[in-house]
Amino acid sequence: MAEFFPDVPKIQFEGPKSKNDLAFKHYNPEEQVEGQSMKDLFRFSVAYWHTFRGTGSDPFGAPTLKRPWDDGTDSVENALKRVDVAFEFMTKLGAEFYCFHDRDVAPEAPTLKQANANLDKVVAKLKDKQKETGVKLLWGTANLFSHPRYLHGAATSCNADVFAYAAAQVKKAIEVTYELGGENYVFWGGREGYTNLFNTDLNRELAHLAKFMHMAHDHAKAIGFKGQFLFEPKPKEPTKHQYDFDAAACLNFIGRNGLDGVIKLNLEANHATLAGHSFMHELEYARIHNALGSIDANTGDLLLGWDTDQFPTDIYLTTQIMLVILEQGGLKPGGTNFDAKVRRESFDPVDLFHAHIGGMDAFARGAKIAAAIRKDGILPEFVKTRYASYDSGIGQKIDTGKASFAELEKYMLEKGEAAPNTSGRQEWIENLINQYV
Amino acid sequence: MAEFFPDVPKIQFEGPKSKNDLAFKHYNPEEQVEGQSMKDLFRFSVAYWHTFRGTGSDPFGAPTLKRPWDDGTDSVENALKRVDVAFEFMTKLGAEFYCFHDRDVAPEAPTLKQANANLDKVVAKLKDKQKETGVKLLWGTANLFSHPRYLHGAATSCNADVFAYAAAQVKKAIEVTYELGGENYVFWGGREGYTNLFNTDLNRELAHLAKFMHMAHDHAKAIGFKGQFLFEPKPKEPTKHQYDFDAAACLNFIGRNGLDGVIKLNLEANHATLAGHSFMHELEYARIHNALGSIDANTGDLLLGWDTDQFPTDIYLTTQIMLVILEQGGLKPGGTNFDAKVRRESFDPVDLFHAHIGGMDAFARGAKIAAAIRKDGILPEFVKTRYASYDSGIGQKIDTGKASFAELEKYMLEKGEAAPNTSGRQEWIENLINQYV
Amino acid sequence: MAEFFPDVPKIQFEGPKSKNDLAFKHYNPEEQVEGQSMKDLFRFSVAYWHTFRGTGSDPFGAPTLKRPWDDGTDSVENALKRVDVAFEFMTKLGAEFYCFHDRDVAPEAPTLKQANANLDKVVAKLKDKQKETGVKLLWGTANLFSHPRYLHGAATSCNADVFAYAAAQVKKAIEVTYELGGENYVFWGGREGYTNLFNTDLNRELAHLAKFMHMAHDHAKAIGFKGQFLFEPKPKEPTKHQYDFDAAACLNFIGRNGLDGVIKLNLEANHATLAGHSFMHELEYARIHNALGSIDANTGDLLLGWDTDQFPTDIYLTTQIMLVILEQGGLKPGGTNFDAKVRRESFDPVDLFHAHIGGMDAFARGAKIAAAIRKDGILPEFVKTRYASYDSGIGQKIDTGKASFAELEKYMLEKGEAAPNTSGRQEWIENLINQYV
Amino acid sequence: MAEFFPDVPKIQFEGPKSKNDLAFKHYNPEEQVEGQSMKDLFRFSVAYWHTFRGTGSDPFGAPTLKRPWDDGTDSVENALKRVDVAFEFMTKLGAEFYCFHDRDVAPEAPTLKQANANLDKVVAKLKDKQKETGVKLLWGTANLFSHPRYLHGAATSCNADVFAYAAAQVKKAIEVTYELGGENYVFWGGREGYTNLFNTDLNRELAHLAKFMHMAHDHAKAIGFKGQFLFEPKPKEPTKHQYDFDAAACLNFIGRNGLDGVIKLNLEANHATLAGHSFMHELEYARIHNALGSIDANTGDLLLGWDTDQFPTDIYLTTQIMLVILEQGGLKPGGTNFDAKVRRESFDPVDLFHAHIGGMDAFARGAKIAAAIRKDGILPEFVKTRYASYDSGIGQKIDTGKASFAELEKYMLEKGEAAPNTSGRQEWIENLINQYV
Repeated sequence: MAEFFPDVPKIQFEGPKSKNDLAFKHYNPEEQVEGQSMKDLFRFSVAYWHTFRGTGSDPFGAPTLKRPWDDGTDSVENALKRVDVAFEFMTKLGAEFYCFHDRDVAPEAPTLKQANANLDKVVAKLKDKQKETGVKLLWGTANLFSHPRYLHGAATSCNADVFAYAAAQVKKAIEVTYELGGENYVFWGGREGYTNLFNTDLNRELAHLAKFMHMAHDHAKAIGFKGQFLFEPKPKEPTKHQYDFDAAACLNFIGRNGLDGVIKLNLEANHATLAGHSFMHELEYARIHNALGSIDANTGDLLLGWDTDQFPTDIYLTTQIMLVILEQGGLKPGGTNFDAKVRRESFDPVDLFHAHIGGMDAFARGAKIAAAIRKDGILPEFVKTRYASYDSGIGQKIDTGKASFAELEKYMLEKGEAAPNTSGRQEWIENLINQYV
Repeated sequence: MAEFFPDVPKIQFEGPKSKNDLAFKHYNPEEQVEGQSMKDLFRFSVAYWHTFRGTGSDPFGAPTLKRPWDDGTDSVENALKRVDVAFEFMTKLGAEFYCFHDRDVAPEAPTLKQANANLDKVVAKLKDKQKETGVKLLWGTANLFSHPRYLHGAATSCNADVFAYAAAQVKKAIEVTYELGGENYVFWGGREGYTNLFNTDLNRELAHLAKFMHMAHDHAKAIGFKGQFLFEPKPKEPTKHQYDFDAAACLNFIGRNGLDGVIKLNLEANHATLAGHSFMHELEYARIHNALGSIDANTGDLLLGWDTDQFPTDIYLTTQIMLVILEQGGLKPGGTNFDAKVRRESFDPVDLFHAHIGGMDAFARGAKIAAAIRKDGILPEFVKTRYASYDSGIGQKIDTGKASFAELEKYMLEKGEAAPNTSGRQEWIENLINQYV
Repeated sequence: MAEFFPDVPKIQFEGPKSKNDLAFKHYNPEEQVEGQSMKDLFRFSVAYWHTFRGTGSDPFGAPTLKRPWDDGTDSVENALKRVDVAFEFMTKLGAEFYCFHDRDVAPEAPTLKQANANLDKVVAKLKDKQKETGVKLLWGTANLFSHPRYLHGAATSCNADVFAYAAAQVKKAIEVTYELGGENYVFWGGREGYTNLFNTDLNRELAHLAKFMHMAHDHAKAIGFKGQFLFEPKPKEPTKHQYDFDAAACLNFIGRNGLDGVIKLNLEANHATLAGHSFMHELEYARIHNALGSIDANTGDLLLGWDTDQFPTDIYLTTQIMLVILEQGGLKPGGTNFDAKVRRESFDPVDLFHAHIGGMDAFARGAKIAAAIRKDGILPEFVKTRYASYDSGIGQKIDTGKASFAELEKYMLEKGEAAPNTSGRQEWIENLINQYV
Repeated sequence: MAEFFPDVPKIQFEGPKSKNDLAFKHYNPEEQVEGQSMKDLFRFSVAYWHTFRGTGSDPFGAPTLKRPWDDGTDSVENALKRVDVAFEFMTKLGAEFYCFHDRDVAPEAPTLKQANANLDKVVAKLKDKQKETGVKLLWGTANLFSHPRYLHGAATSCNADVFAYAAAQVKKAIEVTYELGGENYVFWGGREGYTNLFNTDLNRELAHLAKFMHMAHDHAKAIGFKGQFLFEPKPKEPTKHQYDFDAAACLNFIGRNGLDGVIKLNLEANHATLAGHSFMHELEYARIHNALGSIDANTGDLLLGWDTDQFPTDIYLTTQIMLVILEQGGLKPGGTNFDAKVRRESFDPVDLFHAHIGGMDAFARGAKIAAAIRKDGILPEFVKTRYASYDSGIGQKIDTGKASFAELEKYMLEKGEAAPNTSGRQEWIENLINQYV
C-alpha cells in the first residue's frame, strides 16, 4: 500500500558492514545504551515543515524539490494527502515521532474561524493515522512568523490585534496538541525581536511576551494539558535580534518573569552556533539549570552566517550531544527532532531517506561513543580529580559557603602563593576522544 | 612643572572651527546637555592599564610604544613614577576620573604580603595626587587573569588555593578602592570561563563564582564601602567561553544567585559586538533591567574577531549610546571609561592625547545629537504611536494583564483578522537621524 | 499623469534645513564636485529587481510589500504595467539610470523561444519609456540563478544543457542591453560555485566559466556592443562558496583566463563585508588594478551573516567610497546602482522614496566630505610623506628596481639598524576625518 | 642521553588497541598508502617557534609553559641548549623534519652584523645535530614581524630602510636554509598589509612586495639554492588586512607580478577558516592552479575569530586534506608542518608529545580513509558521472571550446528547455563518507 515512496523499503538495521544505502548501519532501535533502548533514548522525530512542506526555494531561487504527490496548492485536500505521505515516510523510516506547526499541516485562511476549521479537518486525519501507525506527536507549535500580520512580531508586535490573533492561534495549537497526545508544546519566537532598535520599545515588548506565556500556561492548565512547555533559543534570522537569543537569554527571561518550572528549553544545534556557542555548551548550560527539555537535531555550516539546517552527520557533534543527554538520563518527555532539510540540490524524494538515515546513524554512533567514554571512566575521573581541592580543607569551606574573604586572606597571607596548578591536558583529551571514535 | 608631555598644553575647548589638533572641538565640560554639564554627564575616565601600561605588543610582535619615562622594569619606583605621568596626563586632558586594576599600578610579588605592601606604597601616592589634582577614582578592580596562577580561572579555578588567592586579592582591591574614594568596583572575569568543556565542571564553577561575589559584597558591607558593584560582560578572549558572555548571561547569573540589587553591569562596546550584539542593544537591555551601571567606551573592528579596543570616533555609535544614557538620566555613580588603546603603530606619547580627545569629542557630538533627537520628539513620538493600540481597548487589557487566551480568541474569532499593521519606516528613521548628524 | 505614487511629488533639492521628508537635503544634481556635476559623478541607478519586483518575503515569511498596481501574476501584461510604475518612480526620484535582469522585466516561459518573445515585448516598452523620460539603462544582466534549471549553476553547471541555456539567455540579454543603449553588462554568478566540494570538479567548472565569458565577449564584438563587461564578486549566498568570492578572486580568474581588458568589476558594499573586507578595500584594490568599473551601492548589517542589502546611509561609508571614486575621476561608463531593498516591515510604496532619497543624500554628503579632504590636502600629504624615503637614496633604488639583496645587505650591514619609523597616527586621522563629517 | 624529556620513551607505533598514551595508534611510518610510505607521504615537521619558543603567554596573560631547560634569556647559550632539546624531542617523536624562522633559533641583536653572527653560531650546531640525528629542515623563513622596526611591515613598510633590513635578513635566511639543506623557503607576510587604509598607499606597497620576491628569487639563483619558494596566505591578524589574504589573493599577486613558476603556496588550515574558506577549498584551489606546495597542519576554533593554532585531531578535516594531497600524489618537496601550539593550560613538557602524537595519528587516519574512498571509487565515479554531459555532443563542443553563443542559442531554441538535472546527493555523500570513518 506504499504509494508515495514505491522504491523505498522499510528501513532496517543491517549493521556497519551492509552495503545498502537504505538501511541503518548503526541505529538499532532495540539496542540498549545505558539501560534504555535507542528508541527510548533518542525518541527521533521528523519535522513536518522541512520534510513535507520544504520546497527547496531560497532567497535567490524558486522551489526545486520534486514532490510528485503535491499539487502545489494550499488546499485542505492537498494537506490531507500530505498526511498520507508523511505517515508512509515515518513508518518506513521508523521514526516514532513527528512535530509540526499548525500552518504546516493545514492552510491559513482569510478568517481565524476558517483557519481553525481547516486545522480541525487535518487534525482528525492525523489522529487516525497516529492510531493506525503508532507514530506519535512529540510536540506541536504555532507558526507565528510567516503570515504578514506577524511582520512586527506576534506576542511582541506593536499591534495589539496581532497579539490577540497570536493568542487565539496558540490557544488552538495547544488544544490540538493535546487532542493528538502531544508530549510537549514549543515556543520559537521567529519574529519576537526587532529589526530596528530605534523604533522599538524593548521593555514593553518583553513584558508582552511574558504575559503571553503566562496566558498560554494558564490555558493549558484550564484544559488539562500536561505536556511540557519549551522555549527555543535563536539569536537572529529572520529578525536582526531575537529575544530568545540563546539559552542564557531565555533563562534570564524565564527566571525574571516567574516562568521557572513552567517552561524548559528546546535547543537547536545551528541556533547555538549562530549565537557563538558550541551546541554542547548550550546543552550543558541548560542541563545544569534543570532546563534541558528537548533538542532540534541539525547542524550548520560554521563558515556561513545563516541557519542552514543541515542534517547532523558529524560524529564528534553527536558524541558531545549524547554525553550531556546521557548525563541527564535522556530527554523524555522531550526527544530528538530533525529540524533539518535536504539541500535544494538534493531534490529527489529518496534524498529525504538518505538524510534521515544519516542523522539517525550519526546519533547512534554518538551515543555508543559517549556511553563508552562514560563507562571507561577515564575522562570523568580526570574531571573529578581536577576539582579535588574543593573536597577538603580550605576548598571544602569555600564549596560549602563557610569561608569569608577575611579568612581566605589570612590563609593566603600565611601561605604566600597558591599551590601549583595542574595541566588542563586538552590535547590528551582530544586524543582520548579520538580513541573512542 | 609638566615634564613628561612637555609639548602638550592643557587641552581646551576651542570649538569646531579650531585648526588645533590638541584642542576639543566639541567637548566643552561646562556646556549643558539636558540639564547637566557634559562633565557630569560623561564622567570621563582614563584606563590606567591601556594608557600607562600599554606597550604595543601583540601576539606577533614586541612592544613598540615610546614611553621615555618608563624604565621597563616592574619596580615600585617605576610604578611611582608612572603615577606622576598619569596625573599629568589626566590633568592636561581634563579627564576627571581614572580606573585601574591593582596590578596596573603596583607590581606583583612572590608573596601576597609583598604584593599588598607594593600596592600600599603606590596607593598612598595615588591618594596624594588625587588630592592635589582633583582627579578621582571611578572604579577599581583586581587583575585576576594575567598571573599564571589564574590560568584555569580565579573564582572559577579548579584549584581552591587560587580561589583563596583571588579572594584575598579582591579583598585588598576593594579596600584600596574604598581608601581612594572609588565610586564603583568592577568584576571582569577574564578567565572565568573555559577553554575546553570536556575538562570542566560547569555547575561547580558557576556556583563558586556566585559564592565569590557574595563574599565580596559581604566584605564591602563589613568595611563600609558603599560603592556600586559592577559585572562586565565579555563573550570570549582570552578563554573560549566566558561566563559573563553578554548582558543577558550576566543578568541570568545575577538573578539566579541572589545578586539582584547587589551588582549592576559595566558594559563595553567591543565586548558587545564580539557577542553578536549592537552596543545599543546591550545598553538598552541593561537599562530596562535597571542594571546599566557604567560603560567602557571603545569600539571594535567588526571585520576582526578579537577585542581591538579602539578609541570610539563613530558619531553614529556615540549617538546611540547617548540616546540610552540620556533616557536613564546619566550614569552616575558610573561613568565613561576609555577602555581603549592606541594602535601599536601610534607609538608617540602625543598619540595618547589625540586618541582621548577624539573619543571625548565623539561623545560630545553624540550627546548633542541624541539630545536634539529627544528634544525634537519626532522619533520618540513615532515609537510611542506605534504601540498606541495597547493604550486602550483589547490592547490595554493585554497590557494590564486582564486578558486571557479565551477572551482573545473570542475577540479574534469575531473580528476574523487583525487590524492592519503600519510600516516600520526603518529607512525614514535612518534618514531622520542623518539630519541630526 | 502620476497614477502609481499619487501623493509623492517630484523630489527636489531643498537643502539641509528643509523639513520635507520627500526632498533632497544634500543631493543637488547640478552641484559641482571636483569639476563635474553630482549627476555625472554618481550616475544613480535604480535596481529593477528590488524596487519593482521585491515582495518582502524572506525564508521565514510571506510577501508583505504593498504594491497596489501589481496583480501578483507573472503575466506579460503585469510586466508591462510595472514598466509604467518604474518610470514614474525613477522620473519622480530623479534617478537617471536603472539596471535589470532579463527575468525582472519579463516572465520566464516553458520554452526559451517564448521567454525571448516575452522579453521582446517588454523591451519595446522600456525603449519607448526611456525615450519619453530620458531615463537610461546603466546595465543589463541575465538571471541565471532563480530557475530550478540553474540549481547546480549556469556556466558552471554539471549539466551541459544548462550551460547552453545560460549561453542563449546571456546572448539575448546582451542584445537587449545593446538595443536599450545599456552602457555595461554585468555577470553575477549567483550559483557559479558549489554547495558541496565533494561532488564538484572545481577545475572543470572554472574552465567552463572562462569559456562562457569569452563566448559572451565574442558575441558582443560580433554584434557591435561596445558596453563595458563587469564581473561582480560575492563570497557566498546562495551557494556555500562562489567563484567570484572577492575582487582578488575575480581578478585572479580574469588574469589567468585571458580576460584582462575584457572585463572589469562591479563591486557591492555588502558583498565586500561578507567576504571579510571593508568596501573601501575592495574599491581601492580594484582601482589599482585598473578594474573598478561600477558599484552596487548598499550596506549590510555587520552583525548578521547574510546579504541584507540595506540602503546606505552611513556617511563614513559613503565618504570612503567617494575618496576612491574621486581619485579615479568617477565611474563612467559605470555608475552607482542602489542594489538595496526596503525592509519587509517598510511595506508602503512611499518607503521606496525614503530609501532612495536617503541613499542619494548620503552619497552626496560623502562626496562633499571626500572632496574637502582631498582639497585641504592634509591627509593626502600625510600619506605621501610617509613614503618619502622611497623618493631618494636607497629607497629610490628599491622603488625603481635597481637594488639587489646583496646591495641592500651591504647597506644595512654598514648602517646596523634601520632608521626609526614614524607614528602611523591612526587616531589623529580618525579625528581629522570627523572634522569634515 | 635523553635529558630533557627523561620520562618520555621513543614514540612507537603500537596500533589502535594500545592503551599507551605515548604511542602512535595509527601513524606507522613504514605503512604504505597509495604506493608510498606514510613517512614519505606526510613528511611531518615540527614548528620550532611554537614547540621550542612558545611560552603560553596571550594578550591577557603571562607565560605559563614549564620549560625547565630554558633560562628565559635570549642568549646564544640558551639558544644552543634549545637545539639539544629540539633534536631530542624530534628524535623521540619520530618527526623527520623541522621548520624555523631565523629569530626562533638565534637572538636578535642591536646590529644586523651581530644578529647574523648569532645565527651562524646556532646554525652550525643545527647542522651538526641534523647530521647526527637524520632530522632534516623542511623549510626556513625569516621573522619579519616581531621586531618594532617591522611595525609598518617589512617589504611593504613605508620606511625604505626597513625594506633594506628585511632584504638583508631574508638574504641571510635563504643562505642559512641552503646551508642546512632546507627543501623550501617560506614567505609569510605577517605585517605585509595595513591597519588603516587611510594612511596606506596600496599600490606602492604591493609593488614593493613584488620587487622583494623577485630579488629573493634572484639571490637564490645566484647562490644555487634550488629549494621551492612558498607564499603563505593569511587574511588578518596581526594586521587588519594582509596582502596574502587567501590562496586567490596570493595567486592573483603571483600571476600579475611575473612570479608564476617562481613561488607556490604554503597553506594553513586556520588561516583558511579565518578567510572564510574550508581548508579543503584552499587546498583544491591551489592544486588546480599547480600551486599546492606545502601545508601548515593545524586547526582553528570556528567560533573564535583569531588564529588559535590548535593541533588537528578532527578526522573529517584530515580526510579532506588527504583527499586533495593524494590526488596530487603527495606534497614533496613540501611537507606537513605542525604550525600548532599546546594550549597555555597544557603547560607540561609531556603535553607537547600528546599534541604531536594526536596530530600525526589524525593525519594517518585521514590518509587511510581518503585512500579507501579513492580505492572504492564510489565517490570519484559519482563526480565523474555528474559531468558526463560534457563528454559528448553539445557538452563536448563547449568543453573543447568549439561552441559559440549563436550555436548554443540555436540548439536551445530548438530544444526549448535544458535536460533535467540530477540530484546533488549531498546527504548521501555525507553518509558515504561516514562509512569510511
